[in-house]
Amino acid sequence: MQIQLAQRMEAMKASEIREILKLTRKPSVISFAGGLPAPETFPVAEMQAVAGTMLASRGCEVMQYSTTEGEADLREWIAGRMNGRLGTSVEASEILVTSGSQQGLDLTGKVLLDEGDEVLCESPTYLGAIQAFTAYRPRFVEVPTDDDGMLPEELAKRLAGCRRPKIIYVVPDFQNPSGRSWSLERRRQVRDVASRFPVVIVEDNPYGELRFEGVARPPLKAMDRHGQVVMLGTFSKILCPGLRLGWIAAPVELLEKYVLVKQGADLHTSTLCQRLAADYVRGYDLDAAIGRIRELYRRRRDVMVAALERELPAGIRFTRPSGGLFLWVELPQHLSGRDLLVRCLEHDVAFVPGGSFFPNGGHENTLRLNFSAMPEPRIEEGVRRLARAIREMLADTTVPASA
Amino acid sequence: MQIQLAQRMEAMKASEIREILKLTRKPSVISFAGGLPAPETFPVAEMQAVAGTMLASRGCEVMQYSTTEGEADLREWIAGRMNGRLGTSVEASEILVTSGSQQGLDLTGKVLLDEGDEVLCESPTYLGAIQAFTAYRPRFVEVPTDDDGMLPEELAKRLAGCRRPKIIYVVPDFQNPSGRSWSLERRRQVRDVASRFPVVIVEDNPYGELRFEGVARPPLKAMDRHGQVVMLGTFSKILCPGLRLGWIAAPVELLEKYVLVKQGADLHTSTLCQRLAADYVRGYDLDAAIGRIRELYRRRRDVMVAALERELPAGIRFTRPSGGLFLWVELPQHLSGRDLLVRCLEHDVAFVPGGSFFPNGGHENTLRLNFSAMPEPRIEEGVRRLARAIREMLADTTVPASA
Repeated sequence: MQIQLAQRMEAMKASEIREILKLTRKPSVISFAGGLPAPETFPVAEMQAVAGTMLASRGCEVMQYSTTEGEADLREWIAGRMNGRLGTSVEASEILVTSGSQQGLDLTGKVLLDEGDEVLCESPTYLGAIQAFTAYRPRFVEVPTDDDGMLPEELAKRLAGCRRPKIIYVVPDFQNPSGRSWSLERRRQVRDVASRFPVVIVEDNPYGELRFEGVARPPLKAMDRHGQVVMLGTFSKILCPGLRLGWIAAPVELLEKYVLVKQGADLHTSTLCQRLAADYVRGYDLDAAIGRIRELYRRRRDVMVAALERELPAGIRFTRPSGGLFLWVELPQHLSGRDLLVRCLEHDVAFVPGGSFFPNGGHENTLRLNFSAMPEPRIEEGVRRLARAIREMLADTTVPASA
Repeated sequence: MQIQLAQRMEAMKASEIREILKLTRKPSVISFAGGLPAPETFPVAEMQAVAGTMLASRGCEVMQYSTTEGEADLREWIAGRMNGRLGTSVEASEILVTSGSQQGLDLTGKVLLDEGDEVLCESPTYLGAIQAFTAYRPRFVEVPTDDDGMLPEELAKRLAGCRRPKIIYVVPDFQNPSGRSWSLERRRQVRDVASRFPVVIVEDNPYGELRFEGVARPPLKAMDRHGQVVMLGTFSKILCPGLRLGWIAAPVELLEKYVLVKQGADLHTSTLCQRLAADYVRGYDLDAAIGRIRELYRRRRDVMVAALERELPAGIRFTRPSGGLFLWVELPQHLSGRDLLVRCLEHDVAFVPGGSFFPNGGHENTLRLNFSAMPEPRIEEGVRRLARAIREMLADTTVPASA
């Protein structure tokens, strides 16, 4: 029986990289490829206490259906935390609880995108966003981006050239994959440019709370004057990802549309997971827990940066992120991250080739390294193996001398 | 800022009925409108024990990311149960764990439907399926359906008239909303008709285990000879809905496509919820628990049917389902279920007008009643109120005598 799939499936191919990375699951491999939080930071004992009390006192309720919008007190808490930490002024009625912030991306595509509509994004940008939006068949427009963020004049130029621009997708804090954070000035400039076009700025903020040093900059959401910014948040990096809990903060008229599509997508997010998070944040010191996460990841970032400085051959650039989970390496132009990955597997070390993060291809000489998920000695050993593989490739692929 | 939404949003309107039903949340209202399982059937103490043990023994693991496909042992268990109870022969590799079976519907639309493709369905059909598929802008083709199921010759005729038929969506056991179940003969006939067309039969089976009497009939999935049937299942009605756990059983090549779209939609279903279900079904007697659910719902069905027989004016038909959660009432042609709902709210009783379950409209003289969610005396009192409202409407809207 030959079934005709939807046309969107032509663009939704299994990632070749993901297939390669499946080979890396043996314990001998040191993998910088994932984006996992460190499990030793999960508040397991606290969650056990919360689950016990919750099921004993209101078990029937937490096992029943809930509303599409999400548990009322959790929405209150999210709005309150955003306003307190980020300087936004959102109401609980502007929050929709989602099944992870990945769902926030999918629902965004569903609410906003017709085939051929333009999504403008940083270059590189988050792979999960590319995957989510691709289902709605947009045209991705990569906007040149430097260490301070998206370039506003380049954004303006590209917006002017778009036929139906709908979304500017940005990760201004400790971006996945590059680790970069936007300057305050850039945030303002991008907001100002966007305000001249009928587009939604989708500000994805999974890592904002994981700052190792320096002062936090306000999100675009807090600078929004036109109800133009939708912000995505998640519990995955500040509590744990296994609950699959995220949220969307959007102006009420737009949020109502999100609620409609979420209802068709999965009715609502797990009542039990929502109640676990709501009861945890009420009963325990989330800030202290986040402080421990930050401290751990900062040490691991330091160890990885020091190892890269020590081990990598000269001429290879990498970012020194002041927060988040990732850093970004640029090889010499003639080296391919994909080829390097294949070679690295012989050395029992893995990463994600950076080309995957550019929706329109190219930039094959880049790699993303995760530093959150493993102990410091493994990071040092992994970087040694990576550097060895790079040196081998450099030796094999000498650039032809000018003729 | 005037944002242009995706065209699909034009069809995704907030349900007027849902807005009316929001008014019914006061305790004085007896609501037959919901589709909630009875919370007193939830195994709260068992879940508490499972959660405690699980978090104590492998807390970090259950709070971490998981695979898109789902937890391996849960997929094994689902395949085994399907094969043991339903006579299918599916492998664990053919199972994808979803965030409720509502997500199974959404992913189905995403994998299969382009704008204008045809979805053939029973008439009436499940409202959640209409909502999920509508996001992909298909044309709904209602196939006439009697008490034994979809009419095969009508299905054949309509399939022949379709331009791009993609999905035949069916709920052959204790259908929501009608409560009807298909005869064995009809199942075979529909399978045979479908086998002549390049369509997927999507067999939604949330209620199959909730049979009150008589002998179970095999699902179309068990009769499938061409890899043409995708079956959707759920824990919502046999364990509890608050975990948001369902599954898709599909041939591997098709399941791979589902996995791709699920990855973009929400990465994976909550690890913690999956582990709770997997550990619960291993540690406790699910069949005994389902037996108690069946017994309770059977009594409530009996009470509702007896009350309807006693209270309703002559000439009003209703179904006597032998399982599930719902029964279906047909008023005289000239009465509107929507008007009746408005009147019923004055009498503190509610239901869902049946017109919502026909994707192409009409059939306004119908209603869906839920009998699973409340104690017997409330069912009896609710039916008394409903009957009073119907009698009032009949008195107000006398049919003009023939001229």
